[in-house]
Amino acid sequence: RLYDYVTDPAEIYRRSFAQVRAEADLSGLPADARTVAVRMIHASGDLDLPRSLALHPRLVGAARGALEAGATIFTDAYMIASGVTRRRLPAANAVRCLLDDPRVPERARAWSTTRSAAAVSFWGEELEGAVVAIGNAPTALFHLLEQVAAGGPRPAAVLGIPVGFVGSAESKVALVENPWDLPYLVVHGRRGGSALCASALNALAQEAEIA
Amino acid sequence: RLYDYVTDPAEIYRRSFAQVRAEADLSGLPADARTVAVRMIHASGDLDLPRSLALHPRLVGAARGALEAGATIFTDAYMIASGVTRRRLPAANAVRCLLDDPRVPERARAWSTTRSAAAVSFWGEELEGAVVAIGNAPTALFHLLEQVAAGGPRPAAVLGIPVGFVGSAESKVALVENPWDLPYLVVHGRRGGSALCASALNALAQEAEIA
Repeated sequence: RLYDYVTDPAEIYRRSFAQVRAEADLSGLPADARTVAVRMIHASGDLDLPRSLALHPRLVGAARGALEAGATIFTDAYMIASGVTRRRLPAANAVRCLLDDPRVPERARAWSTTRSAAAVSFWGEELEGAVVAIGNAPTALFHLLEQVAAGGPRPAAVLGIPVGFVGSAESKVALVENPWDLPYLVVHGRRGGSALCASALNALAQEAEIA
Repeated sequence: RLYDYVTDPAEIYRRSFAQVRAEADLSGLPADARTVAVRMIHASGDLDLPRSLALHPRLVGAARGALEAGATIFTDAYMIASGVTRRRLPAANAVRCLLDDPRVPERARAWSTTRSAAAVSFWGEELEGAVVAIGNAPTALFHLLEQVAAGGPRPAAVLGIPVGFVGSAESKVALVENPWDLPYLVVHGRRGGSALCASALNALAQEAEIA
């Protein structure tokens, strides 16, 4: 080989996770959330992630239990759905994104909102007990909370990791402060995105670091 | 609405990009790379990104020219392919990831390497003049460089944004120091991932910030 690098996949995983565990400060996290944080750090290359990570004390149990019981995963972006490792899912769970649903553009116009928020409104009764993973649009997260406030279906767990400069940080605060005791995971601030969100889902789907 | 937030999509984009342009330091970047950096900051929520960003002086022109001429985009992860906004592509370009190609596992075992690296070896002659976007596996980037060294097809431009703790930073240095004058874009260090990589591709596909 022209370059000196590790090529064995198992060895790459082993060294990666060992380094994350050695260097990241996971002490502020619930014990059952540490494997989730490790995978998110691994996916982002960011050892400082735990400083922005906040989890409801029941998040890991609620999300994992729902997935084991066959819950659907709803996402606000196809990239997240694409990033879910299907073989890690405990019950061949459905992974659904409705952003390209043909009904979405008209509703977005009618409600003067984003397609991401309009898509949430079509998640329907299957949302009850589902696992929600929002990794793109703050408006989708705000709309989800408004639906719950209006008496709509309640998901079992909500990953709130939208990214960006307009509404992102605020939407995460709203999720953490939700008055319905919805279990949440957020990355506070502007950071977020599909890769972080998919890694959190994959960690919740199965505790094993490598699978 | 229960919360006070911006719902108009055009206004969200306008405010987001205005804030990035106001707060990020883009002065160290080639002029034609600034829109690329802005989209990458927008996708990651990270105003410090320009400090880690390095571009070959011909990167933007080479990638954009290749895409306009119909070049294929090769990626090392399906998430990246999923994140490419098809309507931004100038020539309905093919977007290809071969990670799940049935020939890949056997070659990975035979060569004692990762599936990501083995998949690169099946990109074939279509790689000549293509745009490569590596956002996951350092081994894929190293393998690509080794193929070029061995006289294999040369891509028109290479985005080297693999993430992680084992080989990621080193693979980016190898790309920047490549002796074949391959135009590159890298995010130095451990950071990277599909979301950053897809946003760079989308920016290169079309200069407009919103499309």
